[in-house]
Amino acid sequence: MNRERVEKDFSWIERLKLALKKNRRDPSSRYFQLATIRPDGNPANRTVVFRGFGPNEEIQLISDTRSQKISELKQKQNAAICWYFSDTREQFRISGVVKTEPSRGSDLAQELWQKISEQARSQFYWPEPGHKFEELAQDFSSIDVNSSTPPDEFCVLRFIPTEVDYLLLRGSPQARFRSYRSENSWISNRINA
Amino acid sequence: MNRERVEKDFSWIERLKLALKKNRRDPSSRYFQLATIRPDGNPANRTVVFRGFGPNEEIQLISDTRSQKISELKQKQNAAICWYFSDTREQFRISGVVKTEPSRGSDLAQELWQKISEQARSQFYWPEPGHKFEELAQDFSSIDVNSSTPPDEFCVLRFIPTEVDYLLLRGSPQARFRSYRSENSWISNRINA
Repeated sequence: MNRERVEKDFSWIERLKLALKKNRRDPSSRYFQLATIRPDGNPANRTVVFRGFGPNEEIQLISDTRSQKISELKQKQNAAICWYFSDTREQFRISGVVKTEPSRGSDLAQELWQKISEQARSQFYWPEPGHKFEELAQDFSSIDVNSSTPPDEFCVLRFIPTEVDYLLLRGSPQARFRSYRSENSWISNRINA
Repeated sequence: MNRERVEKDFSWIERLKLALKKNRRDPSSRYFQLATIRPDGNPANRTVVFRGFGPNEEIQLISDTRSQKISELKQKQNAAICWYFSDTREQFRISGVVKTEPSRGSDLAQELWQKISEQARSQFYWPEPGHKFEELAQDFSSIDVNSSTPPDEFCVLRFIPTEVDYLLLRGSPQARFRSYRSENSWISNRINA
């Protein structure tokens, strides 16, 4: 990274795809933190797993419909991703809105359901997450986790980015760019780190 | 982790200290994500560096007073930490309030300033973070980054936890505990993952 402003060449989505490639030996490079707003107006924050990109730089996730984040997103769609890549020392802070898509009638839900492991699938049949602990009484041998149809507890989250703050921690001074969506394109500016 | 409820034995702070020890070969185990609320009510999220523990399970950070998080915390003290340890596959989601402490007259600020590297110190003399990019015109040779007195741009954040959601991803079912502060002690319950 040289010291010149390279705003015109800067594409956060290309950087992100490159970071995913460069950090692929680290399984946790596909995890990031998603902040949402609780009903009381306070922030919540948790680790989630990246499931793919869609049109318009959409970032796809999956969730249990019974999880807290779903009720939070129902009240307020705005969310903030923090995605840190420890090997390449890059951070993407992505603001946007999240659309929740039920599994019924969703091709994407069907597709993502096929891709997850049997163990990941079985969690959607576990007792209500966040509630007082119950033993897994259910006989899992009777559940067809290999069913091609996801259960109603499975849903897809489509995160639509509106603003991105990119920071490269290697080098001095550190390189930082702020990008925002303007109609169908992105405008980026180099800013002070 | 056996399947019995072990609420009485569960201490999130002991688990957190153990996680820091077990994951110490990974430098990024000392980083976590801090979510705050923007003035517009939307969430912000960024990676920060853990600087130590204080009394009452206080989690200490440092910051530039000119950074966005400081103005956000001035408006709303509530924040949410997400701390994921990739080697041991443990997650701590910590809700709390953040107290900002200016460097002047703060023994803790003085102590933490001594501990950071010369490069980390020099950032507090860089141009206003988040503003339009400026070259580092300043002659750093004239700045005494070895001064024992931190500049006014340096401050300490004391994060006081009020609620913790702990998740151990190893094993099936996953173990999850929710803890909250009750007067001078903590109450923990095992909950469904």
